[in-house]
Amino acid sequence: MSYSLSLETYRAALARIRPYVRHTPIMPLPPLTDELPRGLRLKLENLQVVGSFKPRGVFNTLLQLPDEQRALGVVTASGGNHGVAVAYAAWRLGMKATVYLPASASSDRVKRVEAWGAEVIQHGRNWDDAHAVASAHAAEHGLPYIHPFDADMTVAGQGTLGLELLDDVPDMDAVLIAIGGGGLVAGMANAIKLAKPEVRIIGVEPVGAPSMQAAVEAGRVVELPQVRTIADTLSPRAVSERTRALTAQYVDEIVLVEDAAMVDSMRWLWLHTNQLVEPSGAAVIAAMRTGAVDVSHLRAPVALICGGNAAAESVFSAYEERARG
Amino acid sequence: MSYSLSLETYRAALARIRPYVRHTPIMPLPPLTDELPRGLRLKLENLQVVGSFKPRGVFNTLLQLPDEQRALGVVTASGGNHGVAVAYAAWRLGMKATVYLPASASSDRVKRVEAWGAEVIQHGRNWDDAHAVASAHAAEHGLPYIHPFDADMTVAGQGTLGLELLDDVPDMDAVLIAIGGGGLVAGMANAIKLAKPEVRIIGVEPVGAPSMQAAVEAGRVVELPQVRTIADTLSPRAVSERTRALTAQYVDEIVLVEDAAMVDSMRWLWLHTNQLVEPSGAAVIAAMRTGAVDVSHLRAPVALICGGNAAAESVFSAYEERARG
Repeated sequence: MSYSLSLETYRAALARIRPYVRHTPIMPLPPLTDELPRGLRLKLENLQVVGSFKPRGVFNTLLQLPDEQRALGVVTASGGNHGVAVAYAAWRLGMKATVYLPASASSDRVKRVEAWGAEVIQHGRNWDDAHAVASAHAAEHGLPYIHPFDADMTVAGQGTLGLELLDDVPDMDAVLIAIGGGGLVAGMANAIKLAKPEVRIIGVEPVGAPSMQAAVEAGRVVELPQVRTIADTLSPRAVSERTRALTAQYVDEIVLVEDAAMVDSMRWLWLHTNQLVEPSGAAVIAAMRTGAVDVSHLRAPVALICGGNAAAESVFSAYEERARG
Repeated sequence: MSYSLSLETYRAALARIRPYVRHTPIMPLPPLTDELPRGLRLKLENLQVVGSFKPRGVFNTLLQLPDEQRALGVVTASGGNHGVAVAYAAWRLGMKATVYLPASASSDRVKRVEAWGAEVIQHGRNWDDAHAVASAHAAEHGLPYIHPFDADMTVAGQGTLGLELLDDVPDMDAVLIAIGGGGLVAGMANAIKLAKPEVRIIGVEPVGAPSMQAAVEAGRVVELPQVRTIADTLSPRAVSERTRALTAQYVDEIVLVEDAAMVDSMRWLWLHTNQLVEPSGAAVIAAMRTGAVDVSHLRAPVALICGGNAAAESVFSAYEERARG
């Protein structure tokens, strides 16, 4: 079966979420002492509300819930950007949210979720544990469970970023997109190819967590025996059949990057654009700078900076100490 | 005498520098659990090339140098954003630059200047020492010395930000601007009041370095016996007669903020906008959040985030260590 959605579905999603999300800026690069193509532009989705693309899918989902479900509240499991997005969107829409986090989640993550009034329940060692308990809890109480990537409404919401990009950069000839569970790349690739099939779609995964590349090569979802990457938001052990199928159908190429290259590109982004991003946000830059993908012939490529929630605690601690002086 | 420039001078400066600087984005805030006015917008000048407003004044100056001076190269003294801006602009325009830094300048600062091919000379204990040697060197060799704030062309360049803001936010009713040497506030206030006199201009200084407030109150430049603030880019011991006079004429109000409030507002900006900024970049937010200035009655105030070059080394070191893992 095809999981492809219609262009009208993506357009409707964009109209639906527009009052709640930012139209994030495009940043052209200044001339640099670097070998990247002069036409390269960055889409700063790290400037989205709560610092990643995730609110697009979440708002698209919550806004379509029937009133009786909205009154009950929603449940999710995520120690990362999705959990913060659910907490924010629920607060914004006047709904209750319960967010399951693994016991290992940092206090900063817990605080970011609680800041928007969501209830946090810490359970299990990793996302899979938290997900199992959270979805059981949701089923038992008849509450909507908001999956981080495996749902049509989520894919449609993330895909709005593709339409927004075509609006921002009408002559775009390629876009680089980081891949975690695959909801973002699936939605964006689907929407863009429907609207403008000649745009090249390049996915980027960590060398240590190539769950989408493995699935596309095998023609089915593959559970990796282990994952090992600094980019925690790109590290699910398996994608879903929905995101695999859409990626196989619409993504032209998947390339891999090392952790060290992502961190090096975090520094590069800070130096050249003053954006502090998380490792996943720098993966697309790393793919170009390491030559994993050749962009030298492209006229108007776009690198999607998908998330910015780096662990910056140490910066503030140092300043706080100095301010106490 | 009046140091006021004409609106035409500011417009010409903007046309002159536009090919070389970014038109930086306006960021509306999402609904927040906070007491700031709903109409508040941020002007993210920390996303300017090299991370601060400084290239505006520098490009406006370098682009007006006679060819024979451009061929010789330029000299400046600055351990901060101005030095990096001179290095970048000179590289961009194919000129030689020599940047004097105090011996105490961090290796990160030195690297940021050297990254654009400028020659770095470290001399003296503070900016005043470096400035004395640098301007003597420039005079001796007949080289243009690029002062960080005390020059018409610099004021005109920084003032372009005022015109850009009026273009971005036509109904702007107030703007908050941090004050260091005063070139930015002088140029912006001058340009804005010429174009739209009813916009309220609010200057913000650190409690520990109120050199402009002291000068405006005294009616002349005052050298503070000592300055003590975490916001190093707001810490000159004295402003200049030019910037004092323009501020006295065009700025409606100057308010002061504590270091701890600036650092707290750095965290606030990171949480709500994913912008990591230097303390001076957060000073205007601190002024509102502490109640130093009352903005509750304003419909469309703008907070100018003037610079982003926080010391983020520790973030990258921590990620590098994990990437080596």
